[in-house]
Amino acid sequence: MAGQSSKPDRDKEGQDVSAAVGARSELRKLLSKDQEAELRELRETRNETRRVTVPALEELLYEAIPVLDHGFVRVVDYMGDDAAIVQAARVSYGRGTKQVRQDAGLINYLLRHRHTTPFEMCEIKYHIKLPIFVARQWIRHRTANVNEYSARYSVLDREFYVPSPEHLAAQSSSNRQGRGDVLEGEEAARVLDLLREDAARCYAHYEEMLNQREDGSIIDESRQGLARELARMNLPLNIYTQWYWKIDLHNLLHFVGLRADSHAQYEIRAYADVLLDTLRRWVPITTEAFENHVVGGAHLSGRALAVVKRLLAGEPVEAENSGLSAREWRELMALLDREA
Amino acid sequence: MAGQSSKPDRDKEGQDVSAAVGARSELRKLLSKDQEAELRELRETRNETRRVTVPALEELLYEAIPVLDHGFVRVVDYMGDDAAIVQAARVSYGRGTKQVRQDAGLINYLLRHRHTTPFEMCEIKYHIKLPIFVARQWIRHRTANVNEYSARYSVLDREFYVPSPEHLAAQSSSNRQGRGDVLEGEEAARVLDLLREDAARCYAHYEEMLNQREDGSIIDESRQGLARELARMNLPLNIYTQWYWKIDLHNLLHFVGLRADSHAQYEIRAYADVLLDTLRRWVPITTEAFENHVVGGAHLSGRALAVVKRLLAGEPVEAENSGLSAREWRELMALLDREA
Amino acid sequence: MAGQSSKPDRDKEGQDVSAAVGARSELRKLLSKDQEAELRELRETRNETRRVTVPALEELLYEAIPVLDHGFVRVVDYMGDDAAIVQAARVSYGRGTKQVRQDAGLINYLLRHRHTTPFEMCEIKYHIKLPIFVARQWIRHRTANVNEYSARYSVLDREFYVPSPEHLAAQSSSNRQGRGDVLEGEEAARVLDLLREDAARCYAHYEEMLNQREDGSIIDESRQGLARELARMNLPLNIYTQWYWKIDLHNLLHFVGLRADSHAQYEIRAYADVLLDTLRRWVPITTEAFENHVVGGAHLSGRALAVVKRLLAGEPVEAENSGLSAREWRELMALLDREA
Amino acid sequence: MAGQSSKPDRDKEGQDVSAAVGARSELRKLLSKDQEAELRELRETRNETRRVTVPALEELLYEAIPVLDHGFVRVVDYMGDDAAIVQAARVSYGRGTKQVRQDAGLINYLLRHRHTTPFEMCEIKYHIKLPIFVARQWIRHRTANVNEYSARYSVLDREFYVPSPEHLAAQSSSNRQGRGDVLEGEEAARVLDLLREDAARCYAHYEEMLNQREDGSIIDESRQGLARELARMNLPLNIYTQWYWKIDLHNLLHFVGLRADSHAQYEIRAYADVLLDTLRRWVPITTEAFENHVVGGAHLSGRALAVVKRLLAGEPVEAENSGLSAREWRELMALLDREA
Repeated sequence: MAGQSSKPDRDKEGQDVSAAVGARSELRKLLSKDQEAELRELRETRNETRRVTVPALEELLYEAIPVLDHGFVRVVDYMGDDAAIVQAARVSYGRGTKQVRQDAGLINYLLRHRHTTPFEMCEIKYHIKLPIFVARQWIRHRTANVNEYSARYSVLDREFYVPSPEHLAAQSSSNRQGRGDVLEGEEAARVLDLLREDAARCYAHYEEMLNQREDGSIIDESRQGLARELARMNLPLNIYTQWYWKIDLHNLLHFVGLRADSHAQYEIRAYADVLLDTLRRWVPITTEAFENHVVGGAHLSGRALAVVKRLLAGEPVEAENSGLSAREWRELMALLDREA
Repeated sequence: MAGQSSKPDRDKEGQDVSAAVGARSELRKLLSKDQEAELRELRETRNETRRVTVPALEELLYEAIPVLDHGFVRVVDYMGDDAAIVQAARVSYGRGTKQVRQDAGLINYLLRHRHTTPFEMCEIKYHIKLPIFVARQWIRHRTANVNEYSARYSVLDREFYVPSPEHLAAQSSSNRQGRGDVLEGEEAARVLDLLREDAARCYAHYEEMLNQREDGSIIDESRQGLARELARMNLPLNIYTQWYWKIDLHNLLHFVGLRADSHAQYEIRAYADVLLDTLRRWVPITTEAFENHVVGGAHLSGRALAVVKRLLAGEPVEAENSGLSAREWRELMALLDREA
Repeated sequence: MAGQSSKPDRDKEGQDVSAAVGARSELRKLLSKDQEAELRELRETRNETRRVTVPALEELLYEAIPVLDHGFVRVVDYMGDDAAIVQAARVSYGRGTKQVRQDAGLINYLLRHRHTTPFEMCEIKYHIKLPIFVARQWIRHRTANVNEYSARYSVLDREFYVPSPEHLAAQSSSNRQGRGDVLEGEEAARVLDLLREDAARCYAHYEEMLNQREDGSIIDESRQGLARELARMNLPLNIYTQWYWKIDLHNLLHFVGLRADSHAQYEIRAYADVLLDTLRRWVPITTEAFENHVVGGAHLSGRALAVVKRLLAGEPVEAENSGLSAREWRELMALLDREA
Repeated sequence: MAGQSSKPDRDKEGQDVSAAVGARSELRKLLSKDQEAELRELRETRNETRRVTVPALEELLYEAIPVLDHGFVRVVDYMGDDAAIVQAARVSYGRGTKQVRQDAGLINYLLRHRHTTPFEMCEIKYHIKLPIFVARQWIRHRTANVNEYSARYSVLDREFYVPSPEHLAAQSSSNRQGRGDVLEGEEAARVLDLLREDAARCYAHYEEMLNQREDGSIIDESRQGLARELARMNLPLNIYTQWYWKIDLHNLLHFVGLRADSHAQYEIRAYADVLLDTLRRWVPITTEAFENHVVGGAHLSGRALAVVKRLLAGEPVEAENSGLSAREWRELMALLDREA
């Protein structure tokens, strides 16, 4: 049956991927024997190259990092490293500088001053398995290359996302698109039952309409079976799909900046956190600058900046005389760890 | 209940939109009284402008052209016309030429020689209602601007696409991603029942999880209700969504060229055909050139071109000595109306 | 002769475009009688439309706003207004809200929280005349549509940018890509002479190689003349070119944010300032939010934010114990109007 | 002096890059001793990787392939190979198929049916040195990542493109943007003299305005020197610039399809031909399919296709009764090797 999983969801605190990779014996259940054998072979391959390599990222190649109950992120290929950013910024003949400290200074400068094009000179390709409702948010980032598994051409697997109990959140009463407390007791149990039952029933009917079981066998030789491109419309949005996704570093940082943010839906954040882990291995200097400037940083409007200056000058400022809207005032006080 | 519709689907032969617009009294049922009143008011608005206008397209503004059983296409705004293409190609100070015949010649030339940038100088904005599985194909066209109705923020309407009987196609046996004959009798009836029942049940459970009915009323005051962003995952892929979609003419022609093609899935083709109708009103010269060059035209590979030359020289050419693969040979013979 | 101009360059303080438009009698000299007549006719055109119109922007249509010594910006067409942003954000059937105050609140929220897609629903098209070295910076913004005047197809006009004396800056000694003091006396005079002489000579040789004068007449009937696509390579980078440039509002704000910034080269900033003026007429609510959040705002890194909190807590913070690099410390102190 | 070169330009017939690489001893003169040493070191590097490698392309890494008189193309990095296209098209766990023959069939199919996304899964990065007037055509391809050498930040080298005598073409009398016969005798000599003299003089004045020589030394200690960002405006469009340019395979094929075409200006075609050579090494199956379908193929409009069918049916068709414009008729007859 779909969606039952005792494996805890990946926590947003961002345990390093090493641990996650350690968990791969568990994931393997998702792969067929053939897939396993092929991946094992690829992991043991060693090619010679004149290109830049990043050993810490190479370790992850052909590994599937688990996300949510049936999803994963696999790094398939990459181009460039921290030094390649410097090399491009300088349009240099060789490898840019050879001094890591200088590289870090320049990378920080580029990021701070929005010189984004050198970061576009690194590229990474992932294979990702994710629920369709997450895929629909994800695909809104247009500056990436995507090949998705085709449900016109193939039958989808019987795998559905069902939240673990700690992520079964109520609707927030204060924020129309946010989550509130975690549901408990009977209400939680009922939700999980409904999700599992509807997924199971819809998938069974999908097979019936196709006149074909998940394993490819025909159900009733006397029937034709509905076209795959039509039958799929009966599947719920928590079924898993998968795709190859390739993106440059600048746009990946933009994606992670938006999707690892606390305003993002938990389920896509779980993926963004794993992507951020892969970034730490791939381009550690850039990732550190990004975490300082973007993840840990904040944008102040002109009016908010004026409030900060008045406060620094010792002037008492209240919501009323701040020049900010009530909401902006609350946001600014929260940012500065002050009471609103 | 969702999805019952005696209204025939829009036929791909492309009846003019005028007829479709005539059908709007029927569609109106989809709009609330407030929406109707607002659209009526907007339709009666007349503003003054120095900009280029296209009266034939103005007639369609604020009209919803029906597509499939509950979908529609509405033209919301547009920029430019056929002459604006000429104006941009010439980087002219005024309106380009004033002679329609010269414009047609230049537009044909630009299209034939892939000078695509002048076509990017026209822009159009649509409001579209479409099933999610169609939206997922549609969004793969990245060179457009999109705002989709948010199921994190709002509750989706109880509207599902259910194919009309003549579009209930079996899986093609020769083409893995195509359709074969239309299903009939009991098998067809069973498919329609399953689609309707699963849609109805999933939606009812969506309401139950939300603890809120479609009309906004609370079901059980003692419960909190699951977050909207989670509850939606129980909805099947044939539920309708809607979005604003804005695109330039060059990219729209590319979209229509791919999606009005016989290889496209019927359901997205139904929309592409309506878009093509709106193009005929908006930029008639460009659309005629497009229908000649792209829709009615064909690309020949170097080897296929060599075959055509040999045939013209009176040489007997067979699949075996053609230099083409079996599939390419069949495709070429079909293109030339010859037996393979 | 090229480049002589007693007309002062447009100041970056951003006088309203109304004044600039008032100066158009002067600009008219740049247009031929035919062009003038056609533009006059277009300005007097009044079409009827059901579309959204923005009267304050309509006034500018078919007017050329002067920039630098021979350049201009002309608004050719536009789509949408402030309300169209709200309409798209709500995926609404009508015009969004009808209350300007509510619109302003939502637009501020969208901009503050980086919900950028609704701003992509407005589009504007300009005709711009600019020196080639400015065009080369400009074109790096890829999310726009461009048609440039072709020097393969046509002969370029004899118009070159020569800075006015107050913009003849020395190389900055502290910033490798910045400007220092204004050159004066003999050095300034010599620079202006060189620029004018080389422009004049290169253009004369361009004509000689083409065997054709600017007015189209042949110089020597016994010669063939070099191909236009080759002869143009002799022209210096301060010759003027022109193009049609179409962009959506989100990407235009991004362009203006980067190019109206004090780090941008003066010559492109002069254009960005005029674009900002047109924004104030077109989408006043959005422009006000943009000027508050982006132009007047600032981004703080995580470490800079920590310094601000320590200062607010009354703690003495110095460069040494700030956790910032020397350069970041100076930038932060400048932002907060404190001594570094 | 700039631009003197007895080295023949790279011929468009496309000699293999191996020969070009053989010519590198010649090019080395362009590199400083330090650059040479660094490139030599990089060429001798051998890293270990689990990623896909393409030995035939690895041979080219860190080699500069000469183009025109002072330009070059260097492959800096790459991602993927022919099999990676198949792997992405199948969203496969391993490497796609292992049979080259099957890969070729699928790649042909994808290209023929415009399934372009799998080709986006390969990426390549070049370092290119090219004249500015070529760079201005090149940059119009927006779907690429670019970092250009900054003339705001650095002083440009004294290197100018001067055509070799056989490329000194007259203006075509039949095609407004084409070339006619090659200029000869005095007219040719005069053109070359003018190009060389103006380049030399403009560069000397550039140094004078900067108050700095090409080698970095100051000319006159009592002067400040004009800002680099201003002084560069005196340089002609045939001066060389350089950039890093990174692009995916689909968009690279599009670029080469347009720029290796006979309608493209010779100078950019010389670069496109070298890019095509690197494609043959990198993705030989894809390149063969591309040369058959795109380079050697042709698009027929609906009306042209109708003419072909009538001719095949033995019907006599003349320009007058063909339904084609005079120009289309000529183009079709040329395509079919028939007299117009």
